[in-house]
Amino acid sequence: MSVLVISPGRDPEVWAKELRNQHPGMNVYVYPEDHEKEEVEFAVSWKHPRGIFKNYPNLKVIASMGAGVDHITSDPEIPEHIKITRVIDEDLSSDMSAFVLGLILDHMRNISLHHSSKKWEPKKYQRIRDVKVGILGMGVLGTAVAKSLQLNGFQVSGWANSTREQEEIKIYSGADQMEDLLRETSVLVNLLPLTPQTENILNKDLFQKLPKGAYVINVARGEHLNEHDLLEMIDSGHLSGASLDVFRKEPLPEEHPFWAHSKIQITPHIASITNPGSVVPQIIENYERMTEEEELMNVVERQKGY
Amino acid sequence: MSVLVISPGRDPEVWAKELRNQHPGMNVYVYPEDHEKEEVEFAVSWKHPRGIFKNYPNLKVIASMGAGVDHITSDPEIPEHIKITRVIDEDLSSDMSAFVLGLILDHMRNISLHHSSKKWEPKKYQRIRDVKVGILGMGVLGTAVAKSLQLNGFQVSGWANSTREQEEIKIYSGADQMEDLLRETSVLVNLLPLTPQTENILNKDLFQKLPKGAYVINVARGEHLNEHDLLEMIDSGHLSGASLDVFRKEPLPEEHPFWAHSKIQITPHIASITNPGSVVPQIIENYERMTEEEELMNVVERQKGY
Ligand SMILES: NC(=O)c1ccc[n+]([C@@H]2O[C@H](COP(=O)([O-])OP(=O)(O)OC[C@H]3O[C@@H](n4cnc5c(N)ncnc54)[C@H](OP(=O)(O)O)[C@@H]3O)[C@@H](O)[C@H]2O)c1
Ligand SMILES: NC(=O)c1ccc[n+]([C@@H]2O[C@H](COP(=O)([O-])OP(=O)(O)OC[C@H]3O[C@@H](n4cnc5c(N)ncnc54)[C@H](OP(=O)(O)O)[C@@H]3O)[C@@H](O)[C@H]2O)c1
Repeated sequence: MSVLVISPGRDPEVWAKELRNQHPGMNVYVYPEDHEKEEVEFAVSWKHPRGIFKNYPNLKVIASMGAGVDHITSDPEIPEHIKITRVIDEDLSSDMSAFVLGLILDHMRNISLHHSSKKWEPKKYQRIRDVKVGILGMGVLGTAVAKSLQLNGFQVSGWANSTREQEEIKIYSGADQMEDLLRETSVLVNLLPLTPQTENILNKDLFQKLPKGAYVINVARGEHLNEHDLLEMIDSGHLSGASLDVFRKEPLPEEHPFWAHSKIQITPHIASITNPGSVVPQIIENYERMTEEEELMNVVERQKGY
Repeated sequence: MSVLVISPGRDPEVWAKELRNQHPGMNVYVYPEDHEKEEVEFAVSWKHPRGIFKNYPNLKVIASMGAGVDHITSDPEIPEHIKITRVIDEDLSSDMSAFVLGLILDHMRNISLHHSSKKWEPKKYQRIRDVKVGILGMGVLGTAVAKSLQLNGFQVSGWANSTREQEEIKIYSGADQMEDLLRETSVLVNLLPLTPQTENILNKDLFQKLPKGAYVINVARGEHLNEHDLLEMIDSGHLSGASLDVFRKEPLPEEHPFWAHSKIQITPHIASITNPGSVVPQIIENYERMTEEEELMNVVERQKGY
């Protein structure tokens, strides 16, 4: 019985080392080193090469290294019986909250703008209590961000699939209520998972429902955003700008028009980075549950895609 | 009995209008329009021309338009019997807190840095719980900033003239304890008032007592900072950078080396701007107390200079 670590984008050795340290005796392979495919029952994965998992006849679980699982669910060749798990981690939530708070304050107080203008041009700033933040996706991360913003005095509303009462944060749901949220949103934060339903959701039709001068923050996935529509709506003056941490193609190509746009703030997918040391215990826990045939934690509903 | 509004830097008419609106019947002059000096008992002032107040024989109170009073106390020709008041205002405190929080998050998460580099170069970021903020000056603004940072999970300590117990924030005091504070500070925030004792306090001697890689934020006054020492300590690699909102000369001259320095973030004195509408009620209250010969609010101790 073996574990396969597979992450062409990130350094897999860090993960293998943590797994071996925290579970001595675990047999860990690092893809693509030589290994017996029949032996592998558990994979720890980030952006695997499409189609490979169908060649592992005894694979039972694919554990995502992060909160997102779109890099797994988007592969149509993963057999239905394989379970997919995600990470839920306090650091991942608080890092995301700190980052979104920082982006919003930076925007309201024109910090990067003053910095890059290299000119003494005091601008009127916005007060926290006047800023209405709308959050698309009120899952683990969206909820953490909402709470942190509310703690700091922002007006916060959210949008999710299901309606529910959640403390003092109003949650809208479904396509019908989307408009109600957007109408009263001055800063829109996208924290939806990437699924067929949410792909391209940040488009002209949505942007037009935001009040003039609204600001857009995308920290979920590049595929949520119609890039052309964003540029059009910023250049027409309807949107005041955007902060983007994720892109359809990463690294964002050098010649991409976003780089040179004065109203688009770019960060290189660093909103919240999984810390292997703090996450490996829950992966080991799931590995053990699998061997004991117990119910796994943080399982993704494959039908919903998150 | 008249009120004189005097603020060569800011628009005095906004203040005169608010005073007249909120206290109909008040006789308000706007400097330098024609007025009887003998009539003026109360002045609302920001950066008055040096030496003018000695020509107002019946002047009793000079009310600063902001939290700082160094623009008044630094004029040696203001008769001793004249009372000086400052502003204490919820908006002023929360705007300052939001701004400092934004600067610190921006620094920790490299937001402006990523923005201005125009390159895809993910950098390691700091977590809130690992950042130790030291605040010089635990008065109205320093305390508000400290509470907001603590609420967000930062480790916070302060430094003031007097020792005291203040909730869960440790406050150091006096020159002796300065070193204890600096030794454990990774982000230093200056919120001292400008007095003969605090002028040039941000100098090489102080910077050397900070750990390597510390970051300096000056949101108090330009005269607190030895600019040459700051540049030297950043360029030697001892300090990781600085955010400066205030300068010896404002607007900061175009040819000043700060503008071109990649590790210095500049904002044009916008950390916290007095909102005349919200502040005029306390100024009117003091005006009425003066006429009733009652004790004034928010009086500055002229000997201490704040
Ligand atoms: N930039 C970065 O560094 C970074 C780091 C980590 C994660 N992320 C991204 O953040 C995403 C969100 O993470 P999470 O952990 O918060 O996800 P999550 O816990 O699965 O939450 C997803 C939320 O989106 C809602 N939702 C899903 N589909 C929807 C639809 N079609 N219409 C309306 N609402 C819908 C869900 O509604 P219900 O509550 O009703 O189910 C839920 O509230 C991840 O998928 C990943 O892409 C980015
Ligand atoms: N950039 C901006 O937009 C902006 C806006 C508003 C204000 N400001 C600046 O912020 C400054 C601080 O405002 P504030 O309202 O917080 O002032 P404050 O209430 O008067 O507080 C001053 C603090 O500094 C301490 N202090 C004074 N002299 C000291 C010394 N020699 N050694 C050690 N501690 C000393 C005091 O100690 P004790 O508590 O022991 O008395 C007190 O804690 C203002 O003076 C102004 O210059 C800047």
